[in-house]
Amino acid sequence: MSLMLDEIRQQPAALDHALSTEVQRFRDLQEHFERHRPRFIVIAARGTSDNAAQFGRYLIEITTAIPVSLAAPSVFTLYNGQLDFREVLFVGISQSGESTDVNIAVEEARRCGATTMGITNVIGSPLSQTADHVILLHAGDESSVAATKTWTSQLLMMYLLAWSLGAPLSLDDISRIPGWVQAALECENDIAERARAYTFAEKAIVVGRGFNYCNALEFALKLMEACYIVTGSFSSADFLHGPVAITERGIPAFAFAPPGPTWPGMHAVVEKLRGALALPLLITDERNREAAGPADNVILLPDPGFGGSRLPADLFTPIPYAMPGQLLAAHLAEIKGLNPDCPRMLSKVTQTL
Amino acid sequence: MSLMLDEIRQQPAALDHALSTEVQRFRDLQEHFERHRPRFIVIAARGTSDNAAQFGRYLIEITTAIPVSLAAPSVFTLYNGQLDFREVLFVGISQSGESTDVNIAVEEARRCGATTMGITNVIGSPLSQTADHVILLHAGDESSVAATKTWTSQLLMMYLLAWSLGAPLSLDDISRIPGWVQAALECENDIAERARAYTFAEKAIVVGRGFNYCNALEFALKLMEACYIVTGSFSSADFLHGPVAITERGIPAFAFAPPGPTWPGMHAVVEKLRGALALPLLITDERNREAAGPADNVILLPDPGFGGSRLPADLFTPIPYAMPGQLLAAHLAEIKGLNPDCPRMLSKVTQTL
Repeated sequence: MSLMLDEIRQQPAALDHALSTEVQRFRDLQEHFERHRPRFIVIAARGTSDNAAQFGRYLIEITTAIPVSLAAPSVFTLYNGQLDFREVLFVGISQSGESTDVNIAVEEARRCGATTMGITNVIGSPLSQTADHVILLHAGDESSVAATKTWTSQLLMMYLLAWSLGAPLSLDDISRIPGWVQAALECENDIAERARAYTFAEKAIVVGRGFNYCNALEFALKLMEACYIVTGSFSSADFLHGPVAITERGIPAFAFAPPGPTWPGMHAVVEKLRGALALPLLITDERNREAAGPADNVILLPDPGFGGSRLPADLFTPIPYAMPGQLLAAHLAEIKGLNPDCPRMLSKVTQTL
Repeated sequence: MSLMLDEIRQQPAALDHALSTEVQRFRDLQEHFERHRPRFIVIAARGTSDNAAQFGRYLIEITTAIPVSLAAPSVFTLYNGQLDFREVLFVGISQSGESTDVNIAVEEARRCGATTMGITNVIGSPLSQTADHVILLHAGDESSVAATKTWTSQLLMMYLLAWSLGAPLSLDDISRIPGWVQAALECENDIAERARAYTFAEKAIVVGRGFNYCNALEFALKLMEACYIVTGSFSSADFLHGPVAITERGIPAFAFAPPGPTWPGMHAVVEKLRGALALPLLITDERNREAAGPADNVILLPDPGFGGSRLPADLFTPIPYAMPGQLLAAHLAEIKGLNPDCPRMLSKVTQTL
């Protein structure tokens, strides 16, 4: 069994540990942000961490009213940009804490007036020594090159960060995430069986939207790095603005399709894919059972059933919805005889400028 | 001949016309911004226009010190986000001016306190009626679904916008862009010949960085919508953080590789691709003739030779560098018997929420 698969299964425990260990830090941050509320937030990251940043962007904007930007690190590392970062919270995310460009961006941001935060899995890493505020992922060692448990821990930290910034989320709901992940992991046998169908796929399409746009990006990254499949990942709206033309009979497609605000648009895209005889697989949950269509093209996760009808129905879907994608990539890699723990041309720590 | 190819060739004249017609509006804006300098800029767009927004993001941050964010329209259209947009300039870009979600985002941004700007090719379009400041592209009618001349006009407007915000660009250099484009178009015969090699390509990789990251995104979009090739597009740094694993012997790859700050990193990626026996084609210019490597894998555009050695060497490359990509997509579509003016599943105006 791959380390990747092992680490996927560790996620409920890792998330539980991260929650109980790090929540006090966010209580302190909440007090801090009450006195020093940022006007803008900028997040710098690469790869999987950048996909977590994407989630943070939607979550923080929607729940706190603070505008968020995803940094372009080369502005700092290559072009010597000197931005006006007064009243900015600048957040660097890196599993290893050794992403050279993220660390340089954090340092430059501080010089330009920002308060800085580092989110990393490694205590004592350069990022943890650079940032004003340090958040640890507590995911335990992650040995597979394909990040899984640090990804979901990063998403978890985005919920806690939004909460500390005043988002109307309850810690009670957030603390139920590990349980939802445990329940979602029960799809593993089903996914392992479905994975066989993709043995010879050379290209694929993944669509997501809003809170689950991050899952489209991250699942595509997993298909590329663990399974060597050239995968386009798109918001369902962007997809219709051009890339939809790559749709053809039999092309594998995946749609993160929770109930909630993104469902009507996502459903329209799925119907378009079905109409063109592409082969879309929907990832959704029990609340969408009727609406989703033919059962053999649908992964139905359990209803997370979180509190508060004022919250968007998809608010807590991204972490459990990541499970089918991670499992599919890990099992497909195994079926193809590939080692997702050590993909060609990759190593665990990537340093770029 | 396709309308796309015709419209590609119209670009020097279109850019020249746009410059002479719209420059006064930017002089007025320059005065306005001296009194009301935005603290932050947010840009909302879809498809090709969103790729222009990407360029604007780098250009404005690097040359004006104002942080820029690319909007996630669904925050406004689906999640009812109410952001704190005091001191924000919110820019919507849409060729047709009829992008529903961009228009809603502009309206919401204004309600949330932003000053708004609309950049469009269509006088009287909804976007031109919504925004506080209206910039017209003056590209003339664009009939091909594959956007070309409105794309380069949008990039041109980004230079003028940065200039009006105080960037140390000279109008003299900006006014030479149409001439550089004319010179770059002389590669057409060479490109038409090279396009034949991609007749049966089903997938491809495009990398860019910094100012030319937008060209990677836009060329990939053209390969998808005009040629139906599944294309991954990446910053060369992001590429190394995972997607590089899709590299295999013989896979077509394209690198926007100008001299300047992005060259060392891009060169390293190109060498990695060559080492794995992928088939990268470099788009660069005469200044890189020695460094670029074997001539049969290199498109050498003329040296733009703009003024001011304090400016990054790649500052004015994005518009002329777009020419080889546009031409390759148009000729390849023709070789494959496809009609880039009317791709499957697409229409000229796309409305999404």
